Amino acid sequence: MKTFFYPKSVAVIGVSNTPDNLGKNIVNNLMEFQFSGEIYAVGPKGGVLFGQKIYPEISQVPGEIDLAVILTPAPTVPGILDQCGRKGIRFAIIESGGFREFSRERTQLEGEILAVAQRYQLRFIGPNGIGNINMENGLCLPFMHLNRDLRLGHISILAQSGGVGLSYLGFLASENIGVNKFVSMGNKLNVDENDLLEYLIRDLGTEVICLYLEGLSNGRRLMELISASPKPVLIHKSNTGPSSARIAFSHTAAMLSDNKVVDAAFHQAGAIRVQDFEEVINYLKIMTLPRLRGDRLAVISRSGGHAVVAADACSKYGFDLPAFPRSFLEEFEKHFRASVITLSNPLDLGDLFDLPVYVQIMEETLKREDIDGALLIHGYRAEKEKEDSRKMIQKAEELSLRFQKPVAVCIFAEDLEISYLKKHYTMPIFLSPEKATQALHLSLRFTRQKVQGLKAEPGERTVDREAVAAILKRAQEAGRPLYLYEGLEVLGHYGFPVIPQACARSLDQALDQGQRLGYPLALKLAIPYVAHKFDVGGVHLHLKTPEDLKQAYYQLQDLALKEPAVHEGFTVVLQKMSARGREIILGGKQDGNFGPVIVFGIGGLYVEVIGDVVLRVAPINRAEARSMIEEIKGIKLLRGVRGQKASDLEAIVDTLIRLSDLLTDFPQIAEIDINPLMVYEAGSGGQVLDARLVLEK
Amino acid sequence: MKTFFYPKSVAVIGVSNTPDNLGKNIVNNLMEFQFSGEIYAVGPKGGVLFGQKIYPEISQVPGEIDLAVILTPAPTVPGILDQCGRKGIRFAIIESGGFREFSRERTQLEGEILAVAQRYQLRFIGPNGIGNINMENGLCLPFMHLNRDLRLGHISILAQSGGVGLSYLGFLASENIGVNKFVSMGNKLNVDENDLLEYLIRDLGTEVICLYLEGLSNGRRLMELISASPKPVLIHKSNTGPSSARIAFSHTAAMLSDNKVVDAAFHQAGAIRVQDFEEVINYLKIMTLPRLRGDRLAVISRSGGHAVVAADACSKYGFDLPAFPRSFLEEFEKHFRASVITLSNPLDLGDLFDLPVYVQIMEETLKREDIDGALLIHGYRAEKEKEDSRKMIQKAEELSLRFQKPVAVCIFAEDLEISYLKKHYTMPIFLSPEKATQALHLSLRFTRQKVQGLKAEPGERTVDREAVAAILKRAQEAGRPLYLYEGLEVLGHYGFPVIPQACARSLDQALDQGQRLGYPLALKLAIPYVAHKFDVGGVHLHLKTPEDLKQAYYQLQDLALKEPAVHEGFTVVLQKMSARGREIILGGKQDGNFGPVIVFGIGGLYVEVIGDVVLRVAPINRAEARSMIEEIKGIKLLRGVRGQKASDLEAIVDTLIRLSDLLTDFPQIAEIDINPLMVYEAGSGGQVLDARLVLEK
Repeated sequence: MKTFFYPKSVAVIGVSNTPDNLGKNIVNNLMEFQFSGEIYAVGPKGGVLFGQKIYPEISQVPGEIDLAVILTPAPTVPGILDQCGRKGIRFAIIESGGFREFSRERTQLEGEILAVAQRYQLRFIGPNGIGNINMENGLCLPFMHLNRDLRLGHISILAQSGGVGLSYLGFLASENIGVNKFVSMGNKLNVDENDLLEYLIRDLGTEVICLYLEGLSNGRRLMELISASPKPVLIHKSNTGPSSARIAFSHTAAMLSDNKVVDAAFHQAGAIRVQDFEEVINYLKIMTLPRLRGDRLAVISRSGGHAVVAADACSKYGFDLPAFPRSFLEEFEKHFRASVITLSNPLDLGDLFDLPVYVQIMEETLKREDIDGALLIHGYRAEKEKEDSRKMIQKAEELSLRFQKPVAVCIFAEDLEISYLKKHYTMPIFLSPEKATQALHLSLRFTRQKVQGLKAEPGERTVDREAVAAILKRAQEAGRPLYLYEGLEVLGHYGFPVIPQACARSLDQALDQGQRLGYPLALKLAIPYVAHKFDVGGVHLHLKTPEDLKQAYYQLQDLALKEPAVHEGFTVVLQKMSARGREIILGGKQDGNFGPVIVFGIGGLYVEVIGDVVLRVAPINRAEARSMIEEIKGIKLLRGVRGQKASDLEAIVDTLIRLSDLLTDFPQIAEIDINPLMVYEAGSGGQVLDARLVLEK
Repeated sequence: MKTFFYPKSVAVIGVSNTPDNLGKNIVNNLMEFQFSGEIYAVGPKGGVLFGQKIYPEISQVPGEIDLAVILTPAPTVPGILDQCGRKGIRFAIIESGGFREFSRERTQLEGEILAVAQRYQLRFIGPNGIGNINMENGLCLPFMHLNRDLRLGHISILAQSGGVGLSYLGFLASENIGVNKFVSMGNKLNVDENDLLEYLIRDLGTEVICLYLEGLSNGRRLMELISASPKPVLIHKSNTGPSSARIAFSHTAAMLSDNKVVDAAFHQAGAIRVQDFEEVINYLKIMTLPRLRGDRLAVISRSGGHAVVAADACSKYGFDLPAFPRSFLEEFEKHFRASVITLSNPLDLGDLFDLPVYVQIMEETLKREDIDGALLIHGYRAEKEKEDSRKMIQKAEELSLRFQKPVAVCIFAEDLEISYLKKHYTMPIFLSPEKATQALHLSLRFTRQKVQGLKAEPGERTVDREAVAAILKRAQEAGRPLYLYEGLEVLGHYGFPVIPQACARSLDQALDQGQRLGYPLALKLAIPYVAHKFDVGGVHLHLKTPEDLKQAYYQLQDLALKEPAVHEGFTVVLQKMSARGREIILGGKQDGNFGPVIVFGIGGLYVEVIGDVVLRVAPINRAEARSMIEEIKGIKLLRGVRGQKASDLEAIVDTLIRLSDLLTDFPQIAEIDINPLMVYEAGSGGQVLDARLVLEK
């Protein structure tokens, strides 16, 4: 991978001297960014460009070539790649467009490219991207003339869309945030975000990684990489709704993935998911400052109104604003011209025109052990206070570094002055107290988050894998879902607390089994084709006598007669009626992007009406399972409201882990619903009453 | 009020020739903004300023003065105001600070000022503000040198904080959005936001009004004004959390009001509540374009990635993206250089470098009857495409006006170019597709919203006001809340469907009444001091026999013995057990800002666990009551989930209106809880089972 960023020599293929040739721009960018290696231009028309020869064919280039950059019409690409292979080139960036994003037929072209690449063990980025940038060595490969304002720094960017990538570069240049590496990944045919992310996590120059993705190549690997990354990873994942699916397909052929799963997976991996451009830039700004280590802020504002706005934002994001010590305030009170301000935190310095005093206040404040960071809000007119204000901003940066605490500076000034500050200062400038506070919140989130990653709970749990495998195989061979009793057996073999049950295929059997289990009983249809057994009348509860059982049995038989699929092999399941508890709903599925995913919610219509569910990608350990319970909106219900006792949370944790184990061990289980898991008071465990398992076809 | 904005002559009081005098800045601003009236400077030291005499006393000013602007130390203000009064001045702006926001003692000063004002029938704005601006006549009164970049336009601003107000002005100047009038309201001692809003709603130059508020003078009047306003009103209300309450008090002495009530009230009045600076500016931008009339947008983007991002945003805000007609696409397909793009909506024009064709596409698109507005996303480098791009933006504005459909233009370009566009074009420039879409969403919201205002449902409802008044009077005279049976009687007199009930003060009475009502019965403590009757065991349900009733009666008696307040005058209420239905919780209170407020939620812990409630300020009519039901998150429950029948929504509507009537008619009812209202299937009505009323002290 390193060669994609640190080639000693680059050949740009598709260059000519005609006015609208785009390959020429690449050569031009390399020269303007002072690329430290050799540059060869290649194009069938030959000629001379910038005083250098254009070679008609790649084979004619005299030296060795580390990296080929291809920008020729799509149909020519397989041939050109083959020439590259023959020349001994092992890395290429294909910037040409017109592949699968254009038409289905063109997908075939991609196949040809892949075949050529495999033949030569050649890795390539693209097609349909705009190229790489490495600010360290001046490798600048986009085919449009690039902004020279880009500064070398520590933020690296992987973008699935060239246009969005360019926008990022523009915003970063405008905020004077330094860039390290940039990749426009295009159709991700050979090298994808995971390959590049893996490289950047180890890359010495990169400290923060920012991804723009429209689709995921392999969500699971992405999660594993991010959760192991010591560097912050921000992800801007678009293409979330049905209406954008169409354009994404036509653009970079992204497949739509379930947005909820994506949200959960990113969160679980410790990635920061950002929603829009402004959020990305706002977060990247704070990343250039020392990390916030606690939630205690000092807010210093020149305007009372801005202080109020900042206090609202601090309250929204859960920051604490410790009072300034009395002695401290007395020290500074003498600087005020007219005593029209009372001092507190937020500190409203409206009356203080002496800016060096601001710096003293900041220094005294950052020294304090009960302050983790500061928000400084300053408004000025350049005409009057340019010098002092700029000096103060510089001092704020010095103090921030000295005390290793972030100082978010929010400035209200004329456009020109803001532009000047952004261009000439490395201190990030925020334009509203809300955005500054939001950024500080993110900084703290990185300090605090404990990423479990995709780790199963260690230790042996008594499970009977063979028994489960046998049940699944039987159903799979018959090409049918699992019967209710089989599903419950599977869960039983994995240590789930399953309610005592028995099957019956005749009334006599049912009465016998009823006698054995003991009344009151529940009677259910065992056949799984009817998804909502309860709704269609396939469940009878509270049967107190054999007579009740008989009536219920007949009713299920009548029901079965109406549905041929149910009638054939008619079977009922008897269960001992369970005690009332809190109904929990658990489920899982194999997700195309992330593999096994589990979900948890509270029954009693909370899931259906409020959509209150928590997802995780499996496997999870105990800590992650606990965090699922903490995240549910209805947590109060589980903790006990209105004098009710708390539910057995550990029983839920245990069940979540077993569910995670089961779906991880048996990918052939496509979907599973456990509804309900009845959970009792703390210490009294739970019981699975019903389950539905669907197998992969 | 008009004199505050259109005075023929202004006296600025507190002016001197010393270098740091602030009054001088006011005179300077008036001159720079070319104020069309006469200007007099007044200050005890006398002297000459800008070639004009400074009068030592207001009485010495030769001419008549329409408006006095006072910027002298707080303790001098009452005396100076008196001088103004004697001079015949009837309008003043007091910019001096150091009143209640500084100390409690200074509140007395405010009293003195009010007394002087009353003596002379003088109206004043402030104290503790930074003054007014009227861009129409150059009236510019802030005591700091102001930005000359401000442009005359149709947006007027009322700000409770001078600092925040200045920030608004800065942002508006930077976006080149025209301003009409501006007021910094300060402590709102005499003239408040309602007085000024009332004026601006009638003001010819003002088309959009934007308020920044930290506290409300009279929320109810504010609502009435806004709901009757044909002009859009945006409100940025800060001071929402506990930590900002402190600073707000020290700043403009705002009292904290319940944020949820504020939210509901603004929404109900049809105001747009904005959360931060950027949202305000984003919304003001779209206000300069024709209003969006429907939800069908065309998205035209130069980058596929931005098109994806825009499509996500459109999906988030519920916009529809109708396909472009086949014939239309064919017409334009010939312009594409290499056919690498497939055409849909969003239209990704990545390959099209011919900008005039963009304009043709836009024109053809806006012509279409199935398109209500457009989002145009364009990225360019000024160096290469400055001319064409600027021309295109201008054309977009022309087309937008011609077809009276908004075209939101989102530009990605270098900072300098963006600054240029903002400075020289009146077309608003958005910097991300998300913000542009959010703004379009707001535009549509104005078109669609139907404001009911504070209107009771017309028509006579059978109520017995006298009976209610008598019950309330009895309890108020005894200085106690209402007994359960009294509360239910009050509701009965207002036409609520109350469950049949009876009182008893002895076991014999209870058994007699039980016989009369018929079993099964519920038995409840009648005394209202125990807030959660149910939790403490004050409610017994499902009593099937006289024996059950007896046992329950004894238990309540035991309970009463433990609580002296309950024991005294021990009374129980018997109710016929109601049928099961959907439990609804209704309530209301007298809010300090808005008067009677009613609230509605679904029982069964949804209110407590999810906080799922909807509020309105009373009175409401039937349409507003229906909108409350539509807004509840658990609406699915009321419509019937899982084969359950829908609840009787009209019964809830009816009860909400009666509750609104009751709280409006009897402001002495401080709080009311109806919990539960049991609601049955559609057509079967509901029944109030329990209610608690607390009276004003």
